[in-house]
Amino acid sequence: MTDDVQTPDLDALRAANPGHWRRAAAIRTLTLDAVAAANSGHSGMPMGMADVATVLFEKHLKFDAARPDWPDRDRFVLSAGHGSMLLYSLLHLTGYPEMTLEQLRNFRQLGAITAGHPEFGHAPGIEVTTGPLGQGISTAVGLAIAEENQRARFGRKIVDHKTWVIAGDGCLMEGVSHEAIALAGKLELSHLIVLWDDNGITIDGKVSISDVTDQRQRFKAAGWDVLEVDGHDPEAIDAALTQAQKGKKPTMVACKTHIAIGSSAQDTSKGHGALTDPDLIAATKRAYGWDHGPFEIPADLKAEWEAIGSRGAEERAAWDMRLASMGSGKKRDFERALAGEAPKRLSATIKALKRQMAESQPKVATRKSSEMVLEVVNPIMPETIGGSADLTGSNNTLTEGLGTFSADNRAGRYVYYGIREHGMAAAMNGIALHGGSKPYGGTFMCFTDYARPSMRLSALMGVPVTYVMTHDSIGLGEDGPTHQPVEHLAISRATPNTNVFRPADTVETAEAWELALTSARTPSVLSLTRQGVPTVRKDFTSKNLTAQGAYVLAEAEGKRMVILMATGSEVEIALKARDLLQQDGIGTRVVSMPCWELFEAQPETYRKRVLPAGPVRVAVEAGVQMGWDKWLFSERGRRDKGAFVGMEGFGASAPASVLYEHYGITAEAVAKAARALI
Amino acid sequence: MTDDVQTPDLDALRAANPGHWRRAAAIRTLTLDAVAAANSGHSGMPMGMADVATVLFEKHLKFDAARPDWPDRDRFVLSAGHGSMLLYSLLHLTGYPEMTLEQLRNFRQLGAITAGHPEFGHAPGIEVTTGPLGQGISTAVGLAIAEENQRARFGRKIVDHKTWVIAGDGCLMEGVSHEAIALAGKLELSHLIVLWDDNGITIDGKVSISDVTDQRQRFKAAGWDVLEVDGHDPEAIDAALTQAQKGKKPTMVACKTHIAIGSSAQDTSKGHGALTDPDLIAATKRAYGWDHGPFEIPADLKAEWEAIGSRGAEERAAWDMRLASMGSGKKRDFERALAGEAPKRLSATIKALKRQMAESQPKVATRKSSEMVLEVVNPIMPETIGGSADLTGSNNTLTEGLGTFSADNRAGRYVYYGIREHGMAAAMNGIALHGGSKPYGGTFMCFTDYARPSMRLSALMGVPVTYVMTHDSIGLGEDGPTHQPVEHLAISRATPNTNVFRPADTVETAEAWELALTSARTPSVLSLTRQGVPTVRKDFTSKNLTAQGAYVLAEAEGKRMVILMATGSEVEIALKARDLLQQDGIGTRVVSMPCWELFEAQPETYRKRVLPAGPVRVAVEAGVQMGWDKWLFSERGRRDKGAFVGMEGFGASAPASVLYEHYGITAEAVAKAARALI
Repeated sequence: MTDDVQTPDLDALRAANPGHWRRAAAIRTLTLDAVAAANSGHSGMPMGMADVATVLFEKHLKFDAARPDWPDRDRFVLSAGHGSMLLYSLLHLTGYPEMTLEQLRNFRQLGAITAGHPEFGHAPGIEVTTGPLGQGISTAVGLAIAEENQRARFGRKIVDHKTWVIAGDGCLMEGVSHEAIALAGKLELSHLIVLWDDNGITIDGKVSISDVTDQRQRFKAAGWDVLEVDGHDPEAIDAALTQAQKGKKPTMVACKTHIAIGSSAQDTSKGHGALTDPDLIAATKRAYGWDHGPFEIPADLKAEWEAIGSRGAEERAAWDMRLASMGSGKKRDFERALAGEAPKRLSATIKALKRQMAESQPKVATRKSSEMVLEVVNPIMPETIGGSADLTGSNNTLTEGLGTFSADNRAGRYVYYGIREHGMAAAMNGIALHGGSKPYGGTFMCFTDYARPSMRLSALMGVPVTYVMTHDSIGLGEDGPTHQPVEHLAISRATPNTNVFRPADTVETAEAWELALTSARTPSVLSLTRQGVPTVRKDFTSKNLTAQGAYVLAEAEGKRMVILMATGSEVEIALKARDLLQQDGIGTRVVSMPCWELFEAQPETYRKRVLPAGPVRVAVEAGVQMGWDKWLFSERGRRDKGAFVGMEGFGASAPASVLYEHYGITAEAVAKAARALI
Repeated sequence: MTDDVQTPDLDALRAANPGHWRRAAAIRTLTLDAVAAANSGHSGMPMGMADVATVLFEKHLKFDAARPDWPDRDRFVLSAGHGSMLLYSLLHLTGYPEMTLEQLRNFRQLGAITAGHPEFGHAPGIEVTTGPLGQGISTAVGLAIAEENQRARFGRKIVDHKTWVIAGDGCLMEGVSHEAIALAGKLELSHLIVLWDDNGITIDGKVSISDVTDQRQRFKAAGWDVLEVDGHDPEAIDAALTQAQKGKKPTMVACKTHIAIGSSAQDTSKGHGALTDPDLIAATKRAYGWDHGPFEIPADLKAEWEAIGSRGAEERAAWDMRLASMGSGKKRDFERALAGEAPKRLSATIKALKRQMAESQPKVATRKSSEMVLEVVNPIMPETIGGSADLTGSNNTLTEGLGTFSADNRAGRYVYYGIREHGMAAAMNGIALHGGSKPYGGTFMCFTDYARPSMRLSALMGVPVTYVMTHDSIGLGEDGPTHQPVEHLAISRATPNTNVFRPADTVETAEAWELALTSARTPSVLSLTRQGVPTVRKDFTSKNLTAQGAYVLAEAEGKRMVILMATGSEVEIALKARDLLQQDGIGTRVVSMPCWELFEAQPETYRKRVLPAGPVRVAVEAGVQMGWDKWLFSERGRRDKGAFVGMEGFGASAPASVLYEHYGITAEAVAKAARALI
């Protein structure tokens, strides 16, 4: 909180360190110019944090602008993503090739890499997509976990870098920040440093209208070191950033700043938004002692900044040498994991398991199937980092020998995330974004709700994390409707760039895991049962049928009159319904549809082969109908008739089998629905 | 954290206060018996917190078991909802009529009111549905806000009660608890008391494997008073609960307890789950000195408990007298709001606004339309409590004269929730559950993600809160894909018992608000534009057409060959597409579909009248297709052809008009899609 604000003396600040002042002013004026050009955006935050960011980039951040993909670079996360011009200015000034002046001029325009909020993948140097508040700081926890774990695996000479975060009041108010901070505190992630932009202003006004939290005390309570600094004093900032790297805990540096410093909107919520008034901008530039045109950076100043950009080149070159001299096996491991490539053995390992399962035909819950897969996968993929949000024994996410990731055991590959679904998902994003590690984590399917904002970012960023979501229907039973997902398959499927797998048995679960672990740019949601299900894929096929999204599991005998579609635990019901219908001479095909998204990606010829026109169609899934109409009626203008057997509302508390009967999700109901359509 | 645990001496505890011990043992043994009968559930928490709960009910909680609907009762919220047997035991023992022994015997069975987690609406005395962790404590903040606000309106003689919460470690780890605690601290909700079950155990093991948070320090940092107590010492508990009611801040009482006390599973994560082993149960009962059969409560003990249940009868009777002697106008107001009835004037007020808008035909954003509605509604509905998650000026949720709800102004009706979408949604649930107040709150549509867990509970509990979700598509523009909802209409519509309104103009917005404000048991999501839209309902109708969910906005001229369906900002596009088609002599009807759920609830005859078989159908909405197939192809076996014009993936950062062109959501594209189908 910064209710009593003293106006800073800009002339004095400038006189005290003219070189620094000019470098920081470049950030401030580029921000003013870009926001004015876009006629939208957030000016005040980059203006307020320019001093801190300048000192960070100039003296502390380990980076080489010419090699933004240097694996051992420090990670910089702008959690307060609305201040995107701070990041874009820094990337431009320090000489990241992609971040041209033209891109800054096109701030917030279609096709530019300078989106309203930083978008991962748009340009090197943007480590994380931020903007939804609290996500950056929480994702940074994952970056720091990956760094610690890889340092333990590959040694300090190869992995030894920091994760720096700039977070605003909004980030710290969001609930996910609590989960992230507590997790980082417990894990003693000393390479994580959060620079809090303590400007006392939010969109609605002063922070004090909605918050009285003592952030320093709060971070201390969570196991952090806390420092405080005048965010406009470069020497003090330098000292604080030096100190922040020394402790054995994560460090929060409270940086007292003036939002929109030097403008007439300074220290006001107006300053939080877009400052586009030409007179205000002119007056502010005058106050900075800046007499250059819009987007104009004097050559000598640009040279100073570019020297900062190449400051790490030598260190980077030395690192290249160290990598080159690494043992070839270890080097191959490091580079393979970094490239996100699964080991060659993975395919054979999955096939062997599938063969074994097709033979033994176990009746187990698919959450147990998932564990069986992890048991063979984790030993051959040292890059996996598993975990659960306090449901380890229910999600079946822990396999032998992983070890607990902790301050005492950085080589441990299992994170006890605590009751923090949202923080876990954000951390998983960070682990994946870091490169070199492959995260998976579990909770109940219903609690995708808690993790939604980070799951959406997995999809938007295109990071291949794996969500192990068990207890995926009313099959959860007695815990009742608060814990029984009914709309969550629809929610996950509605999200772009997300593969939602609902495997029917151990074979499909193994196939789904193979696809999740080899996915390059798409996150996976594994929707898994609590209750036992039989093996339905009894004949071993080398081919990964789940990769096609849907396939014919059981063909009709005689004339094909009915197609039954199902996923997961309901495939068993469809097969039983088929038996009932076939007994009456009604030829019935059963299509298992473990992944709609992959089915949609198939050629039309394949889709039509699996779901040909003509037969009536019945879909069965223990969730809401939303989305199924597409498969029931999708081919335009066809005469197909369709029906859906599933849930119409929330579930209830009772044993699973009672609930399936109660809601009429039975083989008899499916057969009846089919008969009514013929 | 409670890593070093000393085993309590049960005999000593029993000897120190035999009466108390026996009363608490009744809770503990009913829990053991019910969990054993269900063969599932959570035994340890009710066993551990039985002493605290006994003292609370016996000496502090203001209630009258015979009149659970007494408006001035204290609210008791079991945030750690998995310990539901604690609540059910208390309700049974104190004599709530519905909570019979038979219900306890049927714990977790279909049709019983004793669900796995407490379900609001199942039985009086269950104030809030809990189980998804963190929800109870966060909803309680809303209960306390409503109490303060009504106390200011109706006086201490009518409204003066406490909100008590039992929360576990899980509740305090969830991010939403951070938002709730900080909000309560800022608002100085001194009538809110949280009893933290500090048992040091979660499902995965000791709390210390995932957390080192100093909860006392954390609550203090958020502006709370903090007390500590031995949770098995009834006198100390009594003193702490007395003290907790005295401060000027909300109070957290850290109750050190032993989970599953007295059993062999005490102080272990095994004790967190279902203790069903007969030998363990027998041994535990022996340790309690309890020698009665399963579900057997000696008559004298039951009588003791029932005396506790009627302890508040006198106070309640006095309150009845005070209410009776209240001024008739104020009394009517109080009772009307409590019944959740809108004032009679509401209908006329909405009609007047509609007439005015049909005449002036403004082109405004529907978020602005929403503000226009609130400007006429808030003055005639003193029960509304508005707010925003730090987007007041964007959500347009604040109207003149509401006043800021704060420690200094309890009569204020506007809550600055801060950047806490989740906490806001939970608080809104609490405000509505309290009775007598009607909450609405705003954020960006995209951030429904953050509020999801509480929005689901609104639907599951059936509380008629109103979510004002603005910036509801790519029309948000430059902020980019992190802030642009594409899947969120589908997500909201997939959720049972949720009315999702996407009004096209001010008239439909007024109708949607009327429906939201008169809803009895269904929450409403208002999906509103950032950008201006024209008035499309130019002819005044007294009837609320939005109540039908969908209706014919513009009829085809000539033979009806095409039906265009649209919602919100895309209705304008559909109307323009109709112009293009009609120019070519293609008869085109436009159907506005502001609320699918209400359309589905219409008789089939009406639905067929609006969407008759025959014409081709094109739907246009700036979101994903999921769900639309139902309207495009829904009537079984028909030859209707359909197409969808909308989004296929995430959006981008650019001005809104550029994005609509870029993604092809234009009148031309809609007309083209229709022509291709004819």
